[in-house]
Amino acid sequence: MTTPSPAIAYVSRRYRFAASHRLYAAELSDAQNRAIYGKCAGDNGHGHNYQIVVTVAGPVDPLTGMVINLDALDALVRDRILRRYDHRYLNLDVEDYVDLVPTGENIVRHIWSLLRDALPAGRLSKVRLVETRDNSFEYQGEAA
Amino acid sequence: MTTPSPAIAYVSRRYRFAASHRLYAAELSDAQNRAIYGKCAGDNGHGHNYQIVVTVAGPVDPLTGMVINLDALDALVRDRILRRYDHRYLNLDVEDYVDLVPTGENIVRHIWSLLRDALPAGRLSKVRLVETRDNSFEYQGEAA
Amino acid sequence: MTTPSPAIAYVSRRYRFAASHRLYAAELSDAQNRAIYGKCAGDNGHGHNYQIVVTVAGPVDPLTGMVINLDALDALVRDRILRRYDHRYLNLDVEDYVDLVPTGENIVRHIWSLLRDALPAGRLSKVRLVETRDNSFEYQGEAA
Amino acid sequence: MTTPSPAIAYVSRRYRFAASHRLYAAELSDAQNRAIYGKCAGDNGHGHNYQIVVTVAGPVDPLTGMVINLDALDALVRDRILRRYDHRYLNLDVEDYVDLVPTGENIVRHIWSLLRDALPAGRLSKVRLVETRDNSFEYQGEAA
Amino acid sequence: MTTPSPAIAYVSRRYRFAASHRLYAAELSDAQNRAIYGKCAGDNGHGHNYQIVVTVAGPVDPLTGMVINLDALDALVRDRILRRYDHRYLNLDVEDYVDLVPTGENIVRHIWSLLRDALPAGRLSKVRLVETRDNSFEYQGEAA
Amino acid sequence: MTTPSPAIAYVSRRYRFAASHRLYAAELSDAQNRAIYGKCAGDNGHGHNYQIVVTVAGPVDPLTGMVINLDALDALVRDRILRRYDHRYLNLDVEDYVDLVPTGENIVRHIWSLLRDALPAGRLSKVRLVETRDNSFEYQGEAA
Repeated sequence: MTTPSPAIAYVSRRYRFAASHRLYAAELSDAQNRAIYGKCAGDNGHGHNYQIVVTVAGPVDPLTGMVINLDALDALVRDRILRRYDHRYLNLDVEDYVDLVPTGENIVRHIWSLLRDALPAGRLSKVRLVETRDNSFEYQGEAA
Repeated sequence: MTTPSPAIAYVSRRYRFAASHRLYAAELSDAQNRAIYGKCAGDNGHGHNYQIVVTVAGPVDPLTGMVINLDALDALVRDRILRRYDHRYLNLDVEDYVDLVPTGENIVRHIWSLLRDALPAGRLSKVRLVETRDNSFEYQGEAA
Repeated sequence: MTTPSPAIAYVSRRYRFAASHRLYAAELSDAQNRAIYGKCAGDNGHGHNYQIVVTVAGPVDPLTGMVINLDALDALVRDRILRRYDHRYLNLDVEDYVDLVPTGENIVRHIWSLLRDALPAGRLSKVRLVETRDNSFEYQGEAA
Repeated sequence: MTTPSPAIAYVSRRYRFAASHRLYAAELSDAQNRAIYGKCAGDNGHGHNYQIVVTVAGPVDPLTGMVINLDALDALVRDRILRRYDHRYLNLDVEDYVDLVPTGENIVRHIWSLLRDALPAGRLSKVRLVETRDNSFEYQGEAA
Repeated sequence: MTTPSPAIAYVSRRYRFAASHRLYAAELSDAQNRAIYGKCAGDNGHGHNYQIVVTVAGPVDPLTGMVINLDALDALVRDRILRRYDHRYLNLDVEDYVDLVPTGENIVRHIWSLLRDALPAGRLSKVRLVETRDNSFEYQGEAA
Repeated sequence: MTTPSPAIAYVSRRYRFAASHRLYAAELSDAQNRAIYGKCAGDNGHGHNYQIVVTVAGPVDPLTGMVINLDALDALVRDRILRRYDHRYLNLDVEDYVDLVPTGENIVRHIWSLLRDALPAGRLSKVRLVETRDNSFEYQGEAA
């Protein structure tokens, strides 16, 4: 059997971090924040067991049979994301969210940009953030 | 850090309903129905814990950091789908399936059309119906 | 290393059936049924992806290293339960529930009695019925 | 078929709350807290999607086929636990943890005592708290 | 209500096989294999509970409401994949991997090619291989 | 509120290892092995993503609010089990199974004995081994 070489495969790997956040936009009044974010706007935040699913696309190396070395991906995600996000209160402890409300949409986009810059061009296919068992957020970059 | 404004993110939310259905096409004979649908054609139906995963796409609002207000989406799905499908026998209790065999394919397409009409144009990205732990159905609308 | 022979181990195996049911006690009025069972009392029933987890206890056979032959357990559960419950409307299609309201409690007890009689005395340790992702029922027999 | 009446069955129902906590004992020094609790002692806390699994034991009512009315149990758990714990920072927002470090062990015991007092004697069988996908805590009361 | 006829829906079905594999490329030295594959290069292999999720795309038949007969898909996957892969050591027992390192990327591509040839043109949409609870691989064929 | 001090709580933690095994008893003929173990007796073994759930019981320390330090438990399980079992072929690579058929029952009992000896007397409450999504094995020691 011959497997065609230039084919693109996708590798997805799940990571986890436990963090707390508060949804509150400084530009808005308390009443507006409460109207938009409901109980997520509570004074002292609340938390989640977040999961990140990182999908990398690329040609399968004919010699190794791999798209990416997962140890390298692990080190990257650990260094850029988990080390800074895990067991933190995102609003206070992580500078990324000083001026950015840590909604699922903003977190997933920010993680995307942190990882994209560290991978070869075009390799990051999508990032999914699972916030609760029923809610998730996905970002695939700009269509550019 | 600056997050590019017009980027599109995807928000997915899972809903559930417990319902029963029977796969039986009135245009076909009993033998044909049994041949096509097997045990799913049994006289009195059978049931599932259905899950619907609704994915909405859209630009992330720079102020709120959100694509869609999930309370609004919940109210929409509750009103158009769950209130009518949950704890029902789809073939007898839900008018949508009077002339439509409630296969996973038909249910997911019908849910799509019920939700698409109630959301701003282009916002509904896909609907997935999970019927059992091993079977699911997805619809993404017409390519149009 | 020596492993003590007469030790008791527990083997659990999960089975599944998709069925519909209606919670309605014939001895009660419509209003009483509605008050007690809520939407579960709907005229035409509704359904679930039920799971049964059967736990068998027994000494580990020193020769085979097994408590029970799982093929034999599979055949038993298939014959006594799945063949009769799967893809059925329990209230109408299964004689066990002609005079017994198919609540989770009653189903799990009935499955227990069907399996206990077919296994060597004392071997059936417990039966768990999972009705939805959040609800389950367990029965362990009489304390006798 | 006859089902023996006085048999005891167990009903388990899963509830969820998203909360943050910090593990830090006021009687101990910072260094001791860091040694004992590691990253869980971080200044501003972190969070989890907690699950509570409440198991109620009791005789199956011969008329209704139920051990407990789940709507009543839901109302009880909502009122005593979820309304106060969900979307909160346990250390600051919930008085139960002003003098009690919110470890999994302490949370599950406290939930037990809040529910036990509101149920008929002997009915609460166990409470399980799931903190992450790999960690859980269970309490079954005093052997008394 | 009218459902538009030529719409394309996607049906996904999950299959499982328990197998062992060893990641070791014959063209490379022992040291190179160990550097690339780490503990996955161990002499005697190791194993996984693999899952395959097969997604078939196609128009929904207006009469049956189905995209594909799942019994036919089951028979195909059973015959071409499961019968040969389940309870095997892929490197030694399955000829597909005599000259192909059984990485997730290579397995998912090979399964794709085995299934694509047996389905009508264009029907196989994607294949996903789940190797562990955190790792998965996906292949969607050549863009051609 | 006062929480009674001497109460016993249970802490459960899940660990994972990917391994392969073959069910074959040297005392039996090939035909007997095939009759007893079926496809699990295949010449070169097959594999699983095993999970171990270790449950430790003990009084909740009034100062720390903990039953056991989970970092210490992790180190113990890693050293005694995971380091030796993960990514191995149990029959050939792990001395524990040179003379012991690696059935789920035997593995769970052996893990029990390895952990019990390393914990304070009476602390190990039970060990559960999850072999596939539907099969699991549990051991709680001798009744002694």
